Amino acid sequence: MKIQERASNISYAIRDLAVPAREIEAQGHKVLKLNIGDPDVYDFDAPSFIADAAVRAIKGKKNFYSPSEGIPEVRDAIAKRECKYRKVNVTGDDILPTAGGSEAISFLLGSLTGNGGEVLMPNPVYPLYASKTKYYGGKPVLYKCIEEDAWQPDLDDIRKKISSRTNAVVLINPNNPTGAVYSRKIIKGIVDICAENNVPLISDEVYDLLTFDKEFVSAGSVAKDACVMLLGSLSKVYFAPGWRAGYITFLGAGTEELKDVCRRMSRLRLSINTPAEYAMKAAMLSDHKFLKAKLNKLRRRRDYSYKRICEIPGLSVSKPEGAMYTFPKIENNPYKTDKEWVLGLLRQKHVLVVHGSGFGGVDDGHFRTVFLPNMETLETAFERIEEFVKG
Amino acid sequence: MKIQERASNISYAIRDLAVPAREIEAQGHKVLKLNIGDPDVYDFDAPSFIADAAVRAIKGKKNFYSPSEGIPEVRDAIAKRECKYRKVNVTGDDILPTAGGSEAISFLLGSLTGNGGEVLMPNPVYPLYASKTKYYGGKPVLYKCIEEDAWQPDLDDIRKKISSRTNAVVLINPNNPTGAVYSRKIIKGIVDICAENNVPLISDEVYDLLTFDKEFVSAGSVAKDACVMLLGSLSKVYFAPGWRAGYITFLGAGTEELKDVCRRMSRLRLSINTPAEYAMKAAMLSDHKFLKAKLNKLRRRRDYSYKRICEIPGLSVSKPEGAMYTFPKIENNPYKTDKEWVLGLLRQKHVLVVHGSGFGGVDDGHFRTVFLPNMETLETAFERIEEFVKG
Repeated sequence: MKIQERASNISYAIRDLAVPAREIEAQGHKVLKLNIGDPDVYDFDAPSFIADAAVRAIKGKKNFYSPSEGIPEVRDAIAKRECKYRKVNVTGDDILPTAGGSEAISFLLGSLTGNGGEVLMPNPVYPLYASKTKYYGGKPVLYKCIEEDAWQPDLDDIRKKISSRTNAVVLINPNNPTGAVYSRKIIKGIVDICAENNVPLISDEVYDLLTFDKEFVSAGSVAKDACVMLLGSLSKVYFAPGWRAGYITFLGAGTEELKDVCRRMSRLRLSINTPAEYAMKAAMLSDHKFLKAKLNKLRRRRDYSYKRICEIPGLSVSKPEGAMYTFPKIENNPYKTDKEWVLGLLRQKHVLVVHGSGFGGVDDGHFRTVFLPNMETLETAFERIEEFVKG
Repeated sequence: MKIQERASNISYAIRDLAVPAREIEAQGHKVLKLNIGDPDVYDFDAPSFIADAAVRAIKGKKNFYSPSEGIPEVRDAIAKRECKYRKVNVTGDDILPTAGGSEAISFLLGSLTGNGGEVLMPNPVYPLYASKTKYYGGKPVLYKCIEEDAWQPDLDDIRKKISSRTNAVVLINPNNPTGAVYSRKIIKGIVDICAENNVPLISDEVYDLLTFDKEFVSAGSVAKDACVMLLGSLSKVYFAPGWRAGYITFLGAGTEELKDVCRRMSRLRLSINTPAEYAMKAAMLSDHKFLKAKLNKLRRRRDYSYKRICEIPGLSVSKPEGAMYTFPKIENNPYKTDKEWVLGLLRQKHVLVVHGSGFGGVDDGHFRTVFLPNMETLETAFERIEEFVKG
């Protein structure tokens, strides 16, 4: 049996660590998991009015395939939400519901890249972008984000790397794994570079309403006529990652063909989970008051994580302004690689984080933590990290 | 913006007919839909004990990402079901839950075909197989199924067409669109041809327990050491198509690498819908007594559809023994193509069926109907089809 190269080469760092973690657990140890961006494995859950909407759909016999291109009333609800919170001017016709952000990435990269074409993406990057670009035969090209400048993208580096070979540019804001929230000026800069070079921009905004210190700015709100696709999801802001519901918002007249292609692609998976799609309507039309308490809880944990990392000699970190991650730097790594450092921490202290090089290759050693666990877990985890760093 | 060829070429006949149908509806007409294999848009629904399991998961805060490779207890339940109903010898380790059969097809074809390699599939074929093979850069090669022999595959034709270029062979049993249920001899014949040629076999058995006249035989039960992947789903047998839950069962030592690759592929979509995955456990462990009443209802509609088609001069049909489809032949088509015939029926009589050429290119004109609607709808639909055929 011959396996195609695209498939045999797949790797996904975040989940690849699950195997050594299971080994430690099999030895009878409890592993403190600061590795996965899933609020629902900690003490968060989908708001009950959203869960109730999914339950109502199931009990109301809405268990059929939904239309591949999305249920019209759900698309309209998403469009309303986009107009309100992302300050764009769209209708339901500009929306394509997807099985989470990850299917949105597949549709877009599957349409746009291949044959060695390049996809510009931030360094560090959420690894699905690099993995899927390679899967479709494209080449990930990383643009610099400046750690000293709170991980804002380096516009000069983007300008230097964009070319006729570029199939798309990816922006992730708020950022996974750095927690950076981009300034309006930077976002406008990236949109303009894309427009000048006639390259479509994929703006992954699945953490859009999870910011702590400054206002979120959608790339859509500064896009004008540029070809921009915004990604959204129930996974993070609405605390229902396991439902696999998200969407793409297509902006600009130049995205018509791409939208048509993605709709046809959507027919090849028939539909997304229909009850989750109905629940998405409830989520999108919400007044979002449920977010306040959750953001407060998250902010306390963010503040604590940030403070503790700053206190540990040998670690430094840029304060995350959004999402659910810190991305500390290991100042003097005694191990050869950050992955070995992470495996050392796992084996010696039973704390699981993700190595920075799993996010595409920042030169210096880093690691990613989530600030989703409760304070008690965070306290123990950072005690152990401190012990580990001190050796 | 440049769209990759793989994407711009996508078509999917069954759902492409939705557009002209909506036009007729927009004119104020009610369209009788005999086109989509979704029991839940007619008077079927998921059994309540399965729906309750999904609801319990949602209310029990199981809204997190499930493990990409599947929840262990769900995989174990699927394995038990496979051993019992498909007479294979597997454990949970041989199972990969997927977002319906369609994701299973993506994982397998994405792993196995590309670079012009060939995938052997029945003619007529469920169109996802042809569309996805092309999407991954492979070439669909259709093997003959013999209409006069109740649409059983032609083993000689498969033997003639299999070669070193063949990446995989696809078997669909019970068959969509013909409703054929294959004999043990035919299945054994195909498995043996695959084993002799060292070609993996994808056996799509998503309709396995929906047979009316003869016993279902799984390719797995005659596979011995051959590399065989069986597909299963909640969509048809468990009447929950909109949940997007299914699975692949990997059989034979030679499938280890492919299983590993498909698991890594599964990480790139994080997880399937978690509540649906828990519901899959309830479905798999069921005593399947719920099926009796549903099969009786389906059989009455099958019998009626078959009888009515036989009564219409100018149509002929092989009696479907399973699944939910009839695939009649248009004896003297006054239109140029079967698609034009189907559009004529839609526009003149407001009955929607799917043209046979949408299933890969049987030479003579055919069309597919579903026998899912209630008797009243079927009566009216066949009256109108009869009027249309008589001109």
